[in-house]
Amino acid sequence: MKNIIVGQSGGPTAVINSSVAGVYKKAKELGVKKVYGMVHGIEGFLKENIIDLDEYLDNEENFELLKRTPSAFLGSCRYKLPVVEGNEEIYEKIFELLDKYEIDTLFYIGGNDSMDTIKMLSDYAKDHNKHQLFMGVPKTIDNDLGITDHCPGYGSACKYIATSLKEIIRDNSSFGVEKPTICIVEIMGRHAGWLTAAASLCKDNDCEGVDAIYLPEVPFDLDKFLNKVKTLAKKKSSVVIAISEGIQTKDGKFVCELNDDDKKVDAFGHKQLSGSASTLANIVAKETGLKTRAIEFSTLQRAATHLASLTDINEAQMVGEKAVEEANNGKTGMMVILVRNDSEEYSCTTDIYDIHNIANVEKKIPLEWIDEKNNYMKDEYIKYAKPLIQGELLPIFKDGVVTHLVRK
Amino acid sequence: MKNIIVGQSGGPTAVINSSVAGVYKKAKELGVKKVYGMVHGIEGFLKENIIDLDEYLDNEENFELLKRTPSAFLGSCRYKLPVVEGNEEIYEKIFELLDKYEIDTLFYIGGNDSMDTIKMLSDYAKDHNKHQLFMGVPKTIDNDLGITDHCPGYGSACKYIATSLKEIIRDNSSFGVEKPTICIVEIMGRHAGWLTAAASLCKDNDCEGVDAIYLPEVPFDLDKFLNKVKTLAKKKSSVVIAISEGIQTKDGKFVCELNDDDKKVDAFGHKQLSGSASTLANIVAKETGLKTRAIEFSTLQRAATHLASLTDINEAQMVGEKAVEEANNGKTGMMVILVRNDSEEYSCTTDIYDIHNIANVEKKIPLEWIDEKNNYMKDEYIKYAKPLIQGELLPIFKDGVVTHLVRK
Repeated sequence: MKNIIVGQSGGPTAVINSSVAGVYKKAKELGVKKVYGMVHGIEGFLKENIIDLDEYLDNEENFELLKRTPSAFLGSCRYKLPVVEGNEEIYEKIFELLDKYEIDTLFYIGGNDSMDTIKMLSDYAKDHNKHQLFMGVPKTIDNDLGITDHCPGYGSACKYIATSLKEIIRDNSSFGVEKPTICIVEIMGRHAGWLTAAASLCKDNDCEGVDAIYLPEVPFDLDKFLNKVKTLAKKKSSVVIAISEGIQTKDGKFVCELNDDDKKVDAFGHKQLSGSASTLANIVAKETGLKTRAIEFSTLQRAATHLASLTDINEAQMVGEKAVEEANNGKTGMMVILVRNDSEEYSCTTDIYDIHNIANVEKKIPLEWIDEKNNYMKDEYIKYAKPLIQGELLPIFKDGVVTHLVRK
Repeated sequence: MKNIIVGQSGGPTAVINSSVAGVYKKAKELGVKKVYGMVHGIEGFLKENIIDLDEYLDNEENFELLKRTPSAFLGSCRYKLPVVEGNEEIYEKIFELLDKYEIDTLFYIGGNDSMDTIKMLSDYAKDHNKHQLFMGVPKTIDNDLGITDHCPGYGSACKYIATSLKEIIRDNSSFGVEKPTICIVEIMGRHAGWLTAAASLCKDNDCEGVDAIYLPEVPFDLDKFLNKVKTLAKKKSSVVIAISEGIQTKDGKFVCELNDDDKKVDAFGHKQLSGSASTLANIVAKETGLKTRAIEFSTLQRAATHLASLTDINEAQMVGEKAVEEANNGKTGMMVILVRNDSEEYSCTTDIYDIHNIANVEKKIPLEWIDEKNNYMKDEYIKYAKPLIQGELLPIFKDGVVTHLVRK
């Protein structure tokens, strides 16, 4: 490989920059001359908006700071490549720029939609006899990419969710003598409940855990929910319930739509969801007279690098390194996956997989990991997720606040 | 002093337990026999709900864990003592219990309302020739207690706000190429803007900071706000604005009440209540067509002990110790205050002050610390607040999640 380019796309995570670090490190080890970064993904690349990563990462301090920086260091985008037919000029422009900068390989760090970009570009290269290689690097807090055991970004979001919930449970328990407070916490995840399931991870000897967990994989039954809340409120002074933003009733209506039907749609045509917790908190207050509180973790759950999982950071770097290694072996149109070793102690190795079997496929949480009452996670999930939140990479504080690496 | 009792009251903070630690430590140093804790404040005490702190704190590990535990370890309450006249039995009960357990001194950790309890009890003791002493220990994230330079609990909330905002700003900046996203972050503080002012603390070489800060001390002008947002959106791809939950228009209407006519109604015809940030986010979206996001820090800002300020933890312990020391000198009806030393490098000493001049008085942020445009903090505030967020006391992680000390 002579020169390479790396881009980031889709919603950021706490460790997406560790994958950039991995790509850079391995490329330099392999003697790659220039490691370019596309600013704001393929959309920025089309405008020739690129940087030379040597300007930032050619010293250990910045390299360490990059791994502690949330959000896409290179800038992200939500641009989806159109079909080739009728849009040839877009593809021609991309390959023209790759040629101009003598770039052999393009690495794209992202989720489902971003893997579609790798698929489109590698297919185009094959169909048009282009020599460039295209490799996907998995990233998403949603953990909904297929084939890979889990996605870098997921573990850190879980660690934030578990720790913040533990703090919220302590806080919510402080007024035991008064009438119960029902706290409903909304967690990201439109169709897959992976993130909300992490609410189960705060339970331990020093924490009773959340009282119920509602995932989008199971139809939400408002009456059963209200009964559950009423029963809990009779027994406990503090009730904390975790719900996914995407929970829907059995007729397919999002809970947050119980009071709002003109929801906006993002660039990919996804419905913009929010407010399920406040909708439910309002319903509970009106129906039961209980004191309620709605909390949304919002973007904090994907941006809280100060609470990132070291396991996650290491794996994010590892998948970046693997992508470069395999491209160096001539591989293209593949995504790096994490493979969990079949051993007592947790460990993962990396492999690669055909992008055609990954792009645009959404992996849901196995229904058999949800308990019989449909409102808690079974031990199978805990066993799967616990290893992913282990370890810490402490932030570097300056003047009392965490520091980040930012583009000039 | 033979035996003493300590209680916690009002909204919890990230370091309220460090004051319990301080009371316990100094009392043991001074040879106090029993250090009791009242469970759920004076309300629990009236039900004789008390614990012996030796059961928990007589080992260094638990003592350290207590300082890393958010929310009120002893449990809190919002019970306010009524006037003596007509309620003599309540006061008689309290003193009967103090006599029963041979308690000389009662320490109460709290804010304005809790200091009122100390005032009432010390006045009653004086009027009825009771020997017991009553000391107030300041605590509130709101920082609105008079006389003291600042309140323990405030610094840690500021550190959480500054760090989380820095992460939110990074996250919000990731989609630069797309149309701007306006993120409005709601921070606690109904009447005083101390907490919201902390939004100014994230600005540094690696962070442009929030774009505007709106405090409740200044009437909120919706037209000016919308113009500001429109101007920012023309120049920037990411706009992050911090507002206090308590901002009101000049006719005294809370911003969260502004959206009355298009309040959404849920499936049951109930009016939806929403916060100031989501009200403003809705108005901005409607008026400008811009993409908006509302984030509320909610109880996380007072419960995130994992991100507490070491300065704050140390001072919280210090005011607890001082209260015991002064009670040992025979003082009563006083609250411990922090006095900032007039030196180049920040340091605080403790003193005590007559509770009558503190209880029920609310300290607002000086108007001269707010800039001419009424939407940012001047350097005077930064100089005041920066020292309060310095240093970290790292959490103790177990199995990937922070650990706490909890009552059996």
